[in-house]
Formats: sequence, C-alpha cells, structure tokens
Amino acid sequence: MSHQATMTAYLSAFIEELIQAGVKEAVISPGSRSTPIALLMAEHPTLKIHVDVDERSAGFFALGIAKASKNPVVLLCTSGTAAANYFPAVAEANLSQIPLIVLTADRPHELRNVGAPQAMDQIELFGNHVKDMVDMAIPEGTNEMLRYAKWHGSRSVDIALKTPRGPVHLNFPLREPLTPILDPSPFTQTGQKKHHVRIYYTHEVLEQSALDKMFQDCSGKKGVIIAGPLDKKNLEGKLVLAAQKLGWPILADPLSGLRSYGEKDQVVIDQYDALLKNEAFQTAIEPEMVVRFGAMPVSKSLKIWLESLDVRTFVVDPGAAWRDPVKGVTDMIHCDERFLLEELTQAAFDVPENWLSVWQKLNKSAQNVLSSHMKEGDLLEEGQIVSVLREHLPDQSGLFIGNSMPIRDVDTYFMQTDKRVKMLANRGANGIDGVVSAALGASTVLQPMYLLIGDLSFYHDMNGLLMAKKYRLNLTIIVVNNDGGGIFSFLPQAGTPKYFESLFGTSTNLDFSHAAALYDAGYEKITRLNDLEDALDKAAFRKGLNIIEVRTNRHENVAHHQALWEKMAKQVERDLTK
Amino acid sequence: MSHQATMTAYLSAFIEELIQAGVKEAVISPGSRSTPIALLMAEHPTLKIHVDVDERSAGFFALGIAKASKNPVVLLCTSGTAAANYFPAVAEANLSQIPLIVLTADRPHELRNVGAPQAMDQIELFGNHVKDMVDMAIPEGTNEMLRYAKWHGSRSVDIALKTPRGPVHLNFPLREPLTPILDPSPFTQTGQKKHHVRIYYTHEVLEQSALDKMFQDCSGKKGVIIAGPLDKKNLEGKLVLAAQKLGWPILADPLSGLRSYGEKDQVVIDQYDALLKNEAFQTAIEPEMVVRFGAMPVSKSLKIWLESLDVRTFVVDPGAAWRDPVKGVTDMIHCDERFLLEELTQAAFDVPENWLSVWQKLNKSAQNVLSSHMKEGDLLEEGQIVSVLREHLPDQSGLFIGNSMPIRDVDTYFMQTDKRVKMLANRGANGIDGVVSAALGASTVLQPMYLLIGDLSFYHDMNGLLMAKKYRLNLTIIVVNNDGGGIFSFLPQAGTPKYFESLFGTSTNLDFSHAAALYDAGYEKITRLNDLEDALDKAAFRKGLNIIEVRTNRHENVAHHQALWEKMAKQVERDLTK
Repeated sequence: MSHQATMTAYLSAFIEELIQAGVKEAVISPGSRSTPIALLMAEHPTLKIHVDVDERSAGFFALGIAKASKNPVVLLCTSGTAAANYFPAVAEANLSQIPLIVLTADRPHELRNVGAPQAMDQIELFGNHVKDMVDMAIPEGTNEMLRYAKWHGSRSVDIALKTPRGPVHLNFPLREPLTPILDPSPFTQTGQKKHHVRIYYTHEVLEQSALDKMFQDCSGKKGVIIAGPLDKKNLEGKLVLAAQKLGWPILADPLSGLRSYGEKDQVVIDQYDALLKNEAFQTAIEPEMVVRFGAMPVSKSLKIWLESLDVRTFVVDPGAAWRDPVKGVTDMIHCDERFLLEELTQAAFDVPENWLSVWQKLNKSAQNVLSSHMKEGDLLEEGQIVSVLREHLPDQSGLFIGNSMPIRDVDTYFMQTDKRVKMLANRGANGIDGVVSAALGASTVLQPMYLLIGDLSFYHDMNGLLMAKKYRLNLTIIVVNNDGGGIFSFLPQAGTPKYFESLFGTSTNLDFSHAAALYDAGYEKITRLNDLEDALDKAAFRKGLNIIEVRTNRHENVAHHQALWEKMAKQVERDLTK
Repeated sequence: MSHQATMTAYLSAFIEELIQAGVKEAVISPGSRSTPIALLMAEHPTLKIHVDVDERSAGFFALGIAKASKNPVVLLCTSGTAAANYFPAVAEANLSQIPLIVLTADRPHELRNVGAPQAMDQIELFGNHVKDMVDMAIPEGTNEMLRYAKWHGSRSVDIALKTPRGPVHLNFPLREPLTPILDPSPFTQTGQKKHHVRIYYTHEVLEQSALDKMFQDCSGKKGVIIAGPLDKKNLEGKLVLAAQKLGWPILADPLSGLRSYGEKDQVVIDQYDALLKNEAFQTAIEPEMVVRFGAMPVSKSLKIWLESLDVRTFVVDPGAAWRDPVKGVTDMIHCDERFLLEELTQAAFDVPENWLSVWQKLNKSAQNVLSSHMKEGDLLEEGQIVSVLREHLPDQSGLFIGNSMPIRDVDTYFMQTDKRVKMLANRGANGIDGVVSAALGASTVLQPMYLLIGDLSFYHDMNGLLMAKKYRLNLTIIVVNNDGGGIFSFLPQAGTPKYFESLFGTSTNLDFSHAAALYDAGYEKITRLNDLEDALDKAAFRKGLNIIEVRTNRHENVAHHQALWEKMAKQVERDLTK
C-alpha cells in the first residue's frame, strides 16, 4: 500500500468505529497536520461536522453540544498551541462529566524534540484533566494495525461515556504528504469489516441488604433531599416521587432541573438560599438526615448551613468523584441515581409529622415576598431580569446560564414554574470563559435557546459568536452589563476602594452594538422592564443571533438583593411567630 | 498574627523578592481567589501592573513584554479554568525561551478533590511545558515560612532566566478572607529584612583546546553560517564580524535580526529561500561546512537543502535544547553564542577562494529581480505589502510578524535594509493564536510598533485589542485579509477542492471595521499600493491603535509568488552561465 492508502485505511477505520460507537458530531479547527483526519471526517456520510477557527471556542462549542445532546462529541485540531487552546474546555468537561473525544494531530516521532516548527510535546498534554490519553502509532496498513486503529475508536468512546463521563485525548502522529485518498470513498468500500464493537453500558447497584438498611434508617426521620446540578436525563420525576414517599422537601438547585421540569410540585423548595440566611428559620427546620444528589448547589447559605449540621449525610455520587466540599458525608454511595430512586419509590416509609408542611409554608411565604419585590419599580435590577425571563421563556426552551452573578441570580430569583425549561451551565470549574460557545453548541440541539450572561463573560468568549454568524444559529443572548465584575461588589474586595475598579470592577467600556454588527446579530440596549419583554418578543420573531444588552448598576444591585433578603427575614419571623 | 497579617507578610515577602530579583511588570487577570496577591502587587511602589480580563490574551501580552524587554514578566490569575487559558502562551514561552513567572491562586488543600466550586487540580497544570512548578505552602507567619516565601521569589526568577530561559509556575493555595492588610503598606515597613538574594548569571564556555580544534577545522573551508531566530541582544554585529573573518556568507532568517540591524552588509544573504529552490544554484554553492545559530529558520527550501547535505554541521544551542529538525548535526555545541563569536573574531582563518563572492553575486542579482518584481502593478500582492512596509518603517521601529503566511512573506520579500527594525514573532510553536496580544505587549516596550498579521490570526486574538483601548497603546496593525487560511493554497490541501473552502479556506467573512469601532481603532481598508503608504502615514500621525486592512486574493497570491520564483530561477541560470 502507498503511504496515502495506508494512512487513509488506518484513519478511516478509526473514524468509522468512533461513529459506530455513537459519535454523531465533530468540531474541527483548521490546520495542516490534521488534514487527513479532517478530510476523512468531512467525507464520512453520516458524521455532522462544524468548523470553528478558534480552538478555545471550538472546545466549548463541542462541550455545549455534548451537554445538550448527552452524546460524545469529537474535537479535532492541528499540532502545537492549537491543542493547548482546548485546555479550558477539557478541564470543564472533566469536572462536569461531559464526554469529549479530543483528537490532536502531531508531528511524527522523527520531528519531535528536534526543534521542528509547530511541534511541542503533546503527550499527556492535558495531564490528569482527561480520563485517558493515548499517543497513537504512526499509521500502518497491516491487519493488526487496522484492528488497533478501529479498537481505539470503540475504546475512546467507551471510556468517555463510562460513569463518570468525561474527556479523553488521542494524539495522532502523521507524516507528509497529508492528503488521504477520498476517491473512492473509504467509507463505501465493500472490503470493510462488517463487525464493530457493541459497547454494553453498566451501572452500579446497591446490595438489597444495604438498601434495606438505608431505607430503615431514613424512615420516619426529618430529612431533606439536596438536588444539585444533575446532568442526567429524566431524574426529576423520580426525585419528586421519592421525596413524596419520604415526606421530605427537596432543596433544588436550578441545575437540578427540578424548578422547571414541567409541573409545580409542593415538595420542591426553591427559596432556601434566602431562607437559610435566617437563624430562626434554621432552628425551625433542623433536620435529622440529609441525602444529596448531584454536584454541590450554588447557594452559599445552603453550604454554610450544611457545614453547621452534624447529622447522617448520604452523598449519592456514581463513579467515586467524592463531590462534597462540605465534607459532611457520613454515607458515601456510588450507585446509579436512577436505580436508587426507583428502589426508594417502591419502599414503604413512615412520614415525619409537621416537617414537610413547615418547609412548604415558609417557602410559599418567601415566594410571595419575592413576587411582590419583583414588581417594584420599572427600572431593571438583575433579579428582575431573571424574573422576566422566567415569565417569558417558552415551554420546552433552553436557558444557558453564565457563571459568577447570573447563576446566583437564577438561584435566588428563578421560582419554580410549570413550564419545562432546560437549564444548563458550566458548573464544573465555574469559569466565565467559553460560555457563549457552549450556549451556541447547545443551541444546535435545543430550541429555542437563551443565554443569560454577564458582560465580562460575554466579552471573554466574543469570538464564539462567529459560529452563530457562520451557521446561522438561533440564540438570544441577554447580556447583563453591570460594567465589569459585578460579583465582587458582594465580596470583601468591595472594602478596598483604592484598587477596586482597576483590579475587580475591570469595566471593559465596550459598546457591544459593534460586536453585534460584526457578527450580524440583532441588538437592543435596554434599561426598563417593559423593554425587556418587547426585546424578547422581537428576538423570538427575528430568529438568528440576538443580543439584548441590559444595563444595570452594580451598587443598586447589591442594595436590591439585600432589600429582598431583609424583607424575607421579616416575613420568616412573622410566619414563625404565628 | 491574624490570618490576614500572616497572609500579607508571607505574600509581600514573596513579591518583594520577585522584584528585587528583576521583575518589573505583572499582568493580572481579575478574580477572587487571587485577591491578596493582586492587591499587594497593586500596592507595590515600583511594580508596573497591567490588568487584562481574558487570561489567554493576558498570557500573550506578558509574553510580548518579556520578548521585547528581555525581562521576566509575572502573570497572575485566579483558580480554575482561568489558569488553563494561559496554556497556549506558556507553551510558546517554553519553546521560544521567554521568561514568564506564572502565578495561579488555588483553593487550599481542604477544598481540593472535594467537588468545590472553581477548583481543579492545578498541580503540574502545564506539565513539562514549564521549567519548574511549585505548589506553595499555605501562608504561615513563622520566620522559616517567610524565608521560604522570599526564597521562592528569588528562585523562580533565577530558573526563568537561566539558559535556556522559559516559564515557571507557582501555585498559591489561599484561604478566606482574601483581603490583605494594605494600611500600613507592607512594602514600606521598617521591620523588613534588608537582604535579598543577588543572582549571578553564568554562561557556558568551551575549553581552549576544543575552540582551537573547531577553528582549525573551519579554516579555509567553504562554510555557511545559518542564523535562525535569535532572541539575544546585540549578537548581529558579532555574527557579521565572524563571517567576515571566515569569508563565509550568513544565511539570515528575518528573526536573526541581521536583515535590519542598522547597516547593509555584504556577508548577509537574504535571498536564499528563493535561490535554494534552484538546483543549478545548489550545485554552484555546495558547502563543506555549516555552522548554525538560533532556532531553525522559517525557509522550507533551506531546510530541504540542509537535509540534502552531508557535511560537518556545527549546531550552537546553549542549554541542551537540541533544536535541529534537519538532524544533520555532527558537532553539538552548548556554549554561549556571544563567547563563541568573540573567540571566533579573535582567531585567524584562511579564507576560501571564490566562495563568498559567488553567494554575494547571486544574492545581489536575486535582489534586483525582487526589486523590479515589486514594482509591477498597482494592486497589492502580499509580497508587495512587505516591500512597502520595509520602505516605510521608521528607523528603530519594531515589527511583530504573524505566523503562517506573514513570516514566510517577510522571509521572501524583506530585503536587508540599513534601517534598524526589531523583528519579533512567536516562532516557538508557530501558533496563529495570541499574536495581537503579544504585539501589544511588545508595543509597551518598543515604539513605534507595527504588526503584520493574517485575517484568521487577527480574528483568533481579537479580544487582545481591549488592552490597546484600555491603556491607549500605540500599535499599527496591517491585517492581510486573504479571506481565510492563505497558506493552504500553497499546500497539497489545495488539491482537494471538494472540502477546501469549508476545512482550510475557512473564510470568516467578518467586516473588521466593526472590530475597529469596538476597540476605538483607526481603520482603513485598502487594495492599492499607494493607499498603503498613505494609510501608514496617517496611522503614524494618529497614534493609538490603527488597523489597516489590506484585501488580497489567495489565488493571485500563489501566482505572484510563483512568478517571482520563476524569474529568479531564470536569472540564476543566466548568472551561472555568464
């Protein structure tokens, strides 16, 4: 076989097997060394490819697709710093358990460590931020090497999808000439092996005796379920059923899916962040047991409260991730959540008296305070933006939430709704980077899609907008522009006025209308409540990329949050003394 | 001592020592965990700080300062993916031997591996792409721990500056509250230790006997000196003297500094890229000996020619980097270039006959072909842009050169000049990323500064422009817009029309006037030769950030390059048969 025939056979065997194992999409960044893989992917009859010039954005775009679709997504780039640009998305994928298959092209061995251009050490490039790294062999055409290439196609998808999911990295050393043979297409040849590896996914279950013991321990106890960010399909209903069975409340983070899974349910508590700032409340609802699902919720007051407790705490975390920053775990359970919840709903429990009802009453009361607080004034505060979005988002829509203030605002202000809104965020490492691209990636799967994001985070990934222009993607971005790092006004840094603006405020002073023009986006800049509703309507009609910039004020924002918390505190006192 | 007093003493001891060891500037990205280091750096009376929101740009901005100033530059960011955004700049710094001191804030040990927000494993974050990585101790106030913090301040600068220079990484776990004590300032207190570590930098020298042997071997031989990218001060004159002494030509990459070090010199050969495409030329100038300095030059024909030779090849590369992709080295010399060159110029050599003169004649002839070729037509070809720049750049100016096509065009079209133009580029990993930021960083050191860059590379780091707006930096950017990846039209990929535009052309279709408006830049879009001169004049007058977009055509560009090479080939034949 010629060099090119060998390379074509080897790489197409690998690519075909990736696809047989479940890969449907790839995000490719242009480059020279990666040419044969890129061309073969383009040539594949079913693989959908997206081409993204900026590898940092490409990484997050792939992450967004994988997050919304639950399918593994392939990334491909050339050698050198190109691959290093993937690092933020790879680290996020690793922490938030998103399956990515990162392919990097590399110089062959004879061009490594010799000062060759565009060559750097790509072995273990992402350290322990990937689940697995393979430095592939130079393409060869023997039967064994074709089986080896195919084998790594299946294996990489399997590792990426195995609980806990995450990114894997394969590095492909390739020699020139880098053009594969596309005519005839390697994917339609009859000589291809018909057999592919079927991968059987398994899950961890608990022994019946351990289940019985756990259920016995829970029965009749005053317990709470904490539902943090949960990136699994259709767990919401099972969580609600289990909570009803136990007579326990579920403290539900927005990313648990429980605040917007299609029906309001009385077991879901959504005001705990404000309520738990209150000592009288804490005393009234002291639990005997905690069962946590998913990652740690965003609420700081919840975290502080959990740290203050000294009770049996079950942490359900499949795959040994040990996600418990509170370090309160007394019972670590690595079994599959679905399995445990199904067993729970089939068991019988004594229900504690005067327990769920207290939570329900205080939560309802806090909701009322929140609702009336939202109606004050016609100037937009950050909480009101969330409130308007909650009202306005269509059923079955998606909401990507930026880190820093937006996720906290959604936590505080997004009351449960009977609409189904799929909420997504990059909560692995909580970076403000890559959020635009991740939302755009998700928008290719989930429609209509909205993104709520702060101005610094929007600026950080403005390059990501090119994909919207290029592929005419539909996304409405609400940029909350508080002129820089709004979260710092809530932190002790606010007490260092001398350097506050230069180091933390860090206003960009950018007129985002120019960014909108650059990327062919609809653009509205607003300051009033009614205008936001109008702008959302207009965006829904216009389609494509829409940017709605809402100017807010960092200082007023802090005051507005505090006013709400004070009102709630007063209401809690009234409720508890009634 | 209180927690805050301890933290302040520990961190300020470290920072003071960094500065005593030679650090003058820091590039800080905003974040919470890094607060005490950021505030203390801001408080330091002499440290100059730059605040850059996007860590990827910040990394390259620091790289640009360090590249132009030859001083180590500090980077600081918060925990999580923020640090991962530094990876491209860190990898580039490592390969191009630029001293960076990367400080990342981290969660303390009790918040590691527990699923805490904004926490990821930052130990060995950059793998073997840094020279050294230290996970610092939690701040403590004992005498020993203050000495430890101070000690690492000196040590990190020393390691970054030791040959070969490069990046180091220190990770600082920090506990809340994160605000240090600034009043009284820790840097003006009398209690501070007066003593700091003075670092004595050394260099490697060759034994006299080895020098004698080398010089004896070189004497009277037909040799060539290859001067690749050399990031050291004032080597140019010494290289020329040595070449004159030996009677050898210097094949000088643009980044050797030799094409623009202040005087035209007959030993400098600048047309070798075109000449070496010609077999008759190769036969006429077959050497007996090669001595290489610096990294490998960009010229592909030079590389192919070197691969075809089987002669004594001295590679002078201090610090054991083994940069020789040709793998033709027969004598590896790790000594300091300056030392070797000074010894060379003091030795006596027989000069080979009819050797340098042949090179000089053919180079002169090629220069004439190039000059007349440049004058054809009034539409701008990419080579003509370089030619106009060469004419127009003021003496003592700086030219940052983008990777991919611009560096190759400068190689082909930038004839030596008697003006002094400092040329810079990111030739470690040759990435198209971070080039705008690196040029802006360099512009703070070197004025007037110009950047020649392709449209994809400009797009890739458009975020970098914020620093120009924020700090009113002076930089004139010439964006060669050939509507995507121009270099691919020169590669075999051009033979795959089916996917060429989607995978390699990858036109962004962006109207960069909007980017200019976003960042308050002057903007001109031109297509004609005279207009480029006018635009450069206007930019020099306007100051600040200027973007000159030159529209070119990829296909015409290939044809233009090829026409030049053909003319040169014909001229070489004529010259050799004369």
